Amino acid sequence: MADALIDLRSDTVTRPTAGMREAMATAEVGDDVYAEDPTVTALEAEVAALFGHEAALFAPTGSMANQIALQLVVPPGDELLCDADAHVVTYEIGAAAAYGGISSRTWPAVGAEVDPEVVARMVRPDGYFAVPTRAIAVEQTHNRGGGGVIPLATLRELRRVADEHRLALHCDGARIWHAHVADGVPLAEYGALFDTLSVCLSKGLGAPVGSLVVGSAEKIARARFVRKRMGGGMRQVGILAAAGRYALAHHVERLAEDHAKAARLAEAVAPYGVLATGVRTNIVPLDLAKHPLDAPALAAAARERGLLLSVLGPRTARLVTHMDVSNDQIDRAAETLTTLLRA
Amino acid sequence: MADALIDLRSDTVTRPTAGMREAMATAEVGDDVYAEDPTVTALEAEVAALFGHEAALFAPTGSMANQIALQLVVPPGDELLCDADAHVVTYEIGAAAAYGGISSRTWPAVGAEVDPEVVARMVRPDGYFAVPTRAIAVEQTHNRGGGGVIPLATLRELRRVADEHRLALHCDGARIWHAHVADGVPLAEYGALFDTLSVCLSKGLGAPVGSLVVGSAEKIARARFVRKRMGGGMRQVGILAAAGRYALAHHVERLAEDHAKAARLAEAVAPYGVLATGVRTNIVPLDLAKHPLDAPALAAAARERGLLLSVLGPRTARLVTHMDVSNDQIDRAAETLTTLLRA
Amino acid sequence: MADALIDLRSDTVTRPTAGMREAMATAEVGDDVYAEDPTVTALEAEVAALFGHEAALFAPTGSMANQIALQLVVPPGDELLCDADAHVVTYEIGAAAAYGGISSRTWPAVGAEVDPEVVARMVRPDGYFAVPTRAIAVEQTHNRGGGGVIPLATLRELRRVADEHRLALHCDGARIWHAHVADGVPLAEYGALFDTLSVCLSKGLGAPVGSLVVGSAEKIARARFVRKRMGGGMRQVGILAAAGRYALAHHVERLAEDHAKAARLAEAVAPYGVLATGVRTNIVPLDLAKHPLDAPALAAAARERGLLLSVLGPRTARLVTHMDVSNDQIDRAAETLTTLLRA
Amino acid sequence: MADALIDLRSDTVTRPTAGMREAMATAEVGDDVYAEDPTVTALEAEVAALFGHEAALFAPTGSMANQIALQLVVPPGDELLCDADAHVVTYEIGAAAAYGGISSRTWPAVGAEVDPEVVARMVRPDGYFAVPTRAIAVEQTHNRGGGGVIPLATLRELRRVADEHRLALHCDGARIWHAHVADGVPLAEYGALFDTLSVCLSKGLGAPVGSLVVGSAEKIARARFVRKRMGGGMRQVGILAAAGRYALAHHVERLAEDHAKAARLAEAVAPYGVLATGVRTNIVPLDLAKHPLDAPALAAAARERGLLLSVLGPRTARLVTHMDVSNDQIDRAAETLTTLLRA
Repeated sequence: MADALIDLRSDTVTRPTAGMREAMATAEVGDDVYAEDPTVTALEAEVAALFGHEAALFAPTGSMANQIALQLVVPPGDELLCDADAHVVTYEIGAAAAYGGISSRTWPAVGAEVDPEVVARMVRPDGYFAVPTRAIAVEQTHNRGGGGVIPLATLRELRRVADEHRLALHCDGARIWHAHVADGVPLAEYGALFDTLSVCLSKGLGAPVGSLVVGSAEKIARARFVRKRMGGGMRQVGILAAAGRYALAHHVERLAEDHAKAARLAEAVAPYGVLATGVRTNIVPLDLAKHPLDAPALAAAARERGLLLSVLGPRTARLVTHMDVSNDQIDRAAETLTTLLRA
Repeated sequence: MADALIDLRSDTVTRPTAGMREAMATAEVGDDVYAEDPTVTALEAEVAALFGHEAALFAPTGSMANQIALQLVVPPGDELLCDADAHVVTYEIGAAAAYGGISSRTWPAVGAEVDPEVVARMVRPDGYFAVPTRAIAVEQTHNRGGGGVIPLATLRELRRVADEHRLALHCDGARIWHAHVADGVPLAEYGALFDTLSVCLSKGLGAPVGSLVVGSAEKIARARFVRKRMGGGMRQVGILAAAGRYALAHHVERLAEDHAKAARLAEAVAPYGVLATGVRTNIVPLDLAKHPLDAPALAAAARERGLLLSVLGPRTARLVTHMDVSNDQIDRAAETLTTLLRA
Repeated sequence: MADALIDLRSDTVTRPTAGMREAMATAEVGDDVYAEDPTVTALEAEVAALFGHEAALFAPTGSMANQIALQLVVPPGDELLCDADAHVVTYEIGAAAAYGGISSRTWPAVGAEVDPEVVARMVRPDGYFAVPTRAIAVEQTHNRGGGGVIPLATLRELRRVADEHRLALHCDGARIWHAHVADGVPLAEYGALFDTLSVCLSKGLGAPVGSLVVGSAEKIARARFVRKRMGGGMRQVGILAAAGRYALAHHVERLAEDHAKAARLAEAVAPYGVLATGVRTNIVPLDLAKHPLDAPALAAAARERGLLLSVLGPRTARLVTHMDVSNDQIDRAAETLTTLLRA
Repeated sequence: MADALIDLRSDTVTRPTAGMREAMATAEVGDDVYAEDPTVTALEAEVAALFGHEAALFAPTGSMANQIALQLVVPPGDELLCDADAHVVTYEIGAAAAYGGISSRTWPAVGAEVDPEVVARMVRPDGYFAVPTRAIAVEQTHNRGGGGVIPLATLRELRRVADEHRLALHCDGARIWHAHVADGVPLAEYGALFDTLSVCLSKGLGAPVGSLVVGSAEKIARARFVRKRMGGGMRQVGILAAAGRYALAHHVERLAEDHAKAARLAEAVAPYGVLATGVRTNIVPLDLAKHPLDAPALAAAARERGLLLSVLGPRTARLVTHMDVSNDQIDRAAETLTTLLRA
């Protein structure tokens, strides 16, 4: 995409900064299949510590990090519960079932809302007649749920449900940094509630590539095997881990700016009745069900004016703010959207 | 189980009648792996014709019939939509994911109700970003849905949704015979709405073993391969098919008696506020959420009085009527339940 | 197939005898999904005892019995070693990989020969770098190996290899009865060497349907779960189990007659240089590599003369003797073959 | 590993050179999930052209590149043929079966030797009775086969076998560069013989991370989907692709030096009868079957003297030369080995 464009399709589109490139260029590396890359090892230790877990493992993508974690906690044929819009059953294009043999049932997705009682009633007991439920997954923040944040109290209640039924609780925390910044909840407080987490360096944090699985030492040892089987055991990957360490050091607290940008856009589109949910973090979800423009039409018109957004469905679209878009560009984007929605 | 017991756990417990045993004892047979068993071939043609489809295939169980059908219409990693209580994602203990690699998302189960608009909104488009939805499955009648019957109009609307999104529509018709008898809808009218159906001979119809997959000639040719891979390619299986042919000839219309028996039980328990849904066919679902007895306690007390029922959850239980339980036994069962629930 | 034909394609084509039909017609039955079918339970206990194991489980086919056993001893992604002609990697059309995720490597098949040292050298250690080998499977007698019998001493040596590397040893014993009769080795002596066995009632023994998995109580408890997931949990299956019990009581020792019939055929074809291996049991393997007739041509010409045989490859064919073919028919078959091969 | 060590465990241990780091630091990047990373796109076009194919796709590892390719050419449950030491059934720890459901049978591995007639006889026809063979895979050069090179004439014969049976032919070409340099066969000449190839940038070529799948435009379009499902769809991966482009420009022809280094080591150990095969490329395979030292003992003793090598089995070990080891270090390694083997 030409740089003249304002690219709000996703926060995955960010490019490494000069500082980050410098960190990559000078990174000390080794063969990580032999666990000998010092930069990866340092990053893994750092992330594990942030979440108060024993260990972490670098993975090439958030999808692989999630899939590794799910394979750790749900044996083939057994069951995962999550919401119907969860990344793990939508954007990982069937990997949990295709590669993990993981059966799934879903509760209805309404933004990032989760009702622990609804989840509890879905659990099937271990046994011979029904599929044994083994894990619950939640997404924090929730991508299709408009960047919504699940309140800490809800997560605690889910932990109670998981404990009562002896289930694992997994957090797809690709954007958990945003929840941390939005709600002020320490990462370790989130970490304490989950058996496994995946966290991503290449979305809001701006690293080019990389996610991590976080968990107990025993789980992460098995994760290393699963990662190799999935084809994710890379070699001198300290190059990428260096970018991740840089991102952790410099790009977490600044997410508040992205949230402010999203709020600015939300304010601009709100009068046209197209805001799908409230905006808490860096995602602005549009519901065009009652608007004359459908999602592809809006996206096409916006593109003509130099603004890129994502089409999620015939009548749903999404804007995502990130570090590669300036406040000035946000103003122009707001203006473009106003023009198009008013018409 | 001793015959003195009144066994209402399931309609799968029926034993072959004298006439059915005679049919099995004299059945002409051959090696069905070579498609040379004349009795199986006749049964398959008969069932295909009943539903107005080109072909059908015998399978050892309803679970295998469903799984074969699902493997025909959903490639590994792609997606099936069904309700969260569906047999295919509950009682087949993860086979769709474990063996077919089939990803699933579910809509909330409320009896046998289906809202085609809710289903339509769950469909993900074929493409690169989201898991491609390939099929919708419904259950007629619905086992965990209290034997409820999906109205023909709803099924037609689902067919429209499937057509619009180019999805296959599968019917888990283990008890479709009951729907046919309850609603008076011809089997062929049901058949016309689905790409594939599974139907069962060993539940209400009283045969000892056997189900069939129904579909186009092309699909059933592939089903024969899948059945062999699943380990379902049996040899002189005409012995069992003979029981199935006998059941089709003698035990379909009599299901009205089982429905009457269920109505009799429903009437008995209704005053105690434990009927989970209305009773349309041969299943009486109990919801003990507000009753002092929980499901295991009720089942244990009933068993002491010679009545067997199924526990589905801490507060849910189920009674199923069938041809091996007499009206007199139903009266005694009703009495037992009244005594226990009143206490 | 018309009865006028002499059907030597397989010993699976046999039809139940009058006595066996009588046993089926009068069998006591129950719902075997609830483990309440007394005839199945009796058969399972009987077969377990024959092989000196704790438990056994009825399955609809030999393929399913093998696949259940393999899923018990090899976790998804881990490795099975067997020969390249083994039924489990040839005639079960990929089920081990497709449904069990089982990786396999094979040693070259030469009749029923196994060199334990070759097998030992193929084992990969448990660990992070190479696929962990978990089990070895052998086939007794060996179908594509011309009904050959693996000597007891070889099996003991394989047991030693398995123990040394902590591997499970599985026996595909579909025709282990033939080995028992040919070599006079007690079934329990075979049983003692294997972690799991599958045995078949519907091949040489003449029952219409059914195989069993044999193993420890712990394994068979898990097998019951896997069987249900595979779609093999049938209901009043005592009908079939009764045939199996009858077959065990009446049709084991008589296999010697089938071996004699095969020897008679082998003698007839030997002069034409087409015998692939020596004939030990009820299979006569033909190697037509150097004969003017190829396998399809021989089969077609034989069929015109009322004799059916199996084509296994362009230049390989197979004759199998069984209880439904008389000595007189064998004489005629020998004559037909002589005529065709001499031409 | 401390730099003082001479690391001959694998050619994967190389670290990026200054020039390569510079290329990474200045690489133009974009979001490759949207196919918008110009450096990746350029690399993919470059590699496709080298092999005379339409398209190529970047993957995080050689294992993933192989697995993507295999999933393209072998449907779940169908069959792959390869040798028993092939990387795809050994070092990818069961991924083909676990994730692709791919059934495999293997021919015995003797160095890099392949007998096309042996392979041809293993093929099973498409159909209902036996598992359908869909593809043959070979490894060029062969890792466990001592870096051996399959002659062009053999590959042509295999192509003929594949064509005759309508099979796909896949090349695990992680070190195909070495074959190209050793035998002087143009890469495009290799490319023309295969339906799919995987090639690796991070082994001999010295890039930190990355492999590619090469094939037709249609196949690579599907590969992009499979890569995403496998969790290999990275974002600003041009950072890594830049290293790959640099490696292709600067590190192919220099492999001749690594071959010379390996020859130097082979010469040193040959007198002690421990050379497993002849040495053609950069791998020196040791067979210690008849030597007093076993593999772990040799490796431990070497490590004490600052030399690292790989243990492949109780009596097999491996030395691999690469660009991060100098001629001087090779001399010292040869000396160390001589000392230890002579003892």
